[in-house]
Amino acid sequence: MKIVDSVSRMSTFTRLLKKEAKTIGFVPTMGYLHEGHLSLVRAAKKHDDTAVMSIFVNPIQFGPKEDFDKYPRDFKRDEELARSAGVDVLFYPSVKDMYPHGYATYVAVEALSSALCGASRPGHFKGVATVVAKLFGIVRPDIAYFGQKDAQQAIIIKKMAEDLHMGVEIKMMPTIREPDGLAISSRNIYLTDDERSDALVLSRSLERAGHLIKHGEKNPKKVLTAINDMIKEKPSVKIDYVSIAGTKDLKEVDTIGSEVLIAIAAYVGRTRLIDNIIIKAALSAIPK
Amino acid sequence: MKIVDSVSRMSTFTRLLKKEAKTIGFVPTMGYLHEGHLSLVRAAKKHDDTAVMSIFVNPIQFGPKEDFDKYPRDFKRDEELARSAGVDVLFYPSVKDMYPHGYATYVAVEALSSALCGASRPGHFKGVATVVAKLFGIVRPDIAYFGQKDAQQAIIIKKMAEDLHMGVEIKMMPTIREPDGLAISSRNIYLTDDERSDALVLSRSLERAGHLIKHGEKNPKKVLTAINDMIKEKPSVKIDYVSIAGTKDLKEVDTIGSEVLIAIAAYVGRTRLIDNIIIKAALSAIPK
Repeated sequence: MKIVDSVSRMSTFTRLLKKEAKTIGFVPTMGYLHEGHLSLVRAAKKHDDTAVMSIFVNPIQFGPKEDFDKYPRDFKRDEELARSAGVDVLFYPSVKDMYPHGYATYVAVEALSSALCGASRPGHFKGVATVVAKLFGIVRPDIAYFGQKDAQQAIIIKKMAEDLHMGVEIKMMPTIREPDGLAISSRNIYLTDDERSDALVLSRSLERAGHLIKHGEKNPKKVLTAINDMIKEKPSVKIDYVSIAGTKDLKEVDTIGSEVLIAIAAYVGRTRLIDNIIIKAALSAIPK
Repeated sequence: MKIVDSVSRMSTFTRLLKKEAKTIGFVPTMGYLHEGHLSLVRAAKKHDDTAVMSIFVNPIQFGPKEDFDKYPRDFKRDEELARSAGVDVLFYPSVKDMYPHGYATYVAVEALSSALCGASRPGHFKGVATVVAKLFGIVRPDIAYFGQKDAQQAIIIKKMAEDLHMGVEIKMMPTIREPDGLAISSRNIYLTDDERSDALVLSRSLERAGHLIKHGEKNPKKVLTAINDMIKEKPSVKIDYVSIAGTKDLKEVDTIGSEVLIAIAAYVGRTRLIDNIIIKAALSAIPK
């Protein structure tokens, strides 16, 4: 595994790969790798000649009161995990190299960025879209892999890549879960044992919502009530939002007909967690 | 000359050129071609295997009270001029193809877009950066050519291409002028004879400013006063701004040391015209 820690060396290297007509599969991450990230690497290994992973905790996607400084980091551990998963090139740039003095350019996928997580995290998705646009420019992937866990992120990046003709195919891969259903997240390490147990209500209420819809429920209000009622039983869980929205425009739906995204964000203790399912009326859950 | 009027066909064609390792020189325009545009085509013909020109009057860079609807258009005339200048591929997309229903992504070069023309045209440079990002994605140029006439635009695009690692070299080419000095612009056709005559004060006051600086003047206030005094003598000319700014950050300078951009925007009658020079203290004008 090659480790590249400068933007210019990474650009040079990816241009070389393109000249050799090698396809590049790309997994952008903020590190503190877990099974979710590694499943994306395995998908890239299967489809592409070269699997590139980036590790970059992107300051501009964190709000002033968010956890940028305390976001978990452990490069040595990540390096070993990346190597064992078969990453060919690990790109690990510094903040100063990504955002040098005088940096000025931002990308916003406006209509999709104020919904769901965008409402409580203003500027978050502008930060995400900007760093991914930069990473796509540096890495020049053919395919980039994102987890459905961050469905809004994946949908926004897909829209950006289409709108700006970036020539990158975006693949949204299934959320990886613990055996008991909790969606795997780098932020799960913040949870106490009790919070970890209460946090299960997120995946379970989504399962319940999926069950209702599979059995014919088309009224989003009834499904939302079922989710809210379940979550309210857990004292350490405070809902940020629960939303049933279209998977293209992220607008809340009046009736559950075509494919919808059911997304939850909640504080479990002081830790903000998200989870979601994508489902069609009267069909089983279909991760895209 | 090949004419391509769809985004998808143009994308397919430019990917084919890249596969054949042909270099692409690109001249994005809003049509109503004049000698300024054609000089850019000639530069592209000299440096690159294939010269691509786009003609697209970009709605999102016009303000609600600006001249989008009445902006001059004459495709047949443009087609002949492009052919005669040696354009290999003329890309002529529709608004609906560039901004389909649900279009959502915008690019802003924030720090550079509020200065100079950005102050009186809010959103203008966001519209410009967005359309050029799209065109770069579709056309995949090695080099893109912009006229110094729109120096702020060229500086913003250069910054965007660097910040987002677009792999496109931006060349700013000298402003083309009428024999009497008026900078050539598609908007010059709006001028009456008297306005056309008064409009000469723009290039002449810039010449005067250049003369002062070449003879040692380093105080921007004195140079600005000289320009303002000359312009005020012309009754049909109303200054929007006169600015002496750094060519990298477009911030107004306290002293004329390194390279500066002296830029003027003024209404001549109801027509807004711009002109500029780039100059170093005690040296002759150096178009980049």
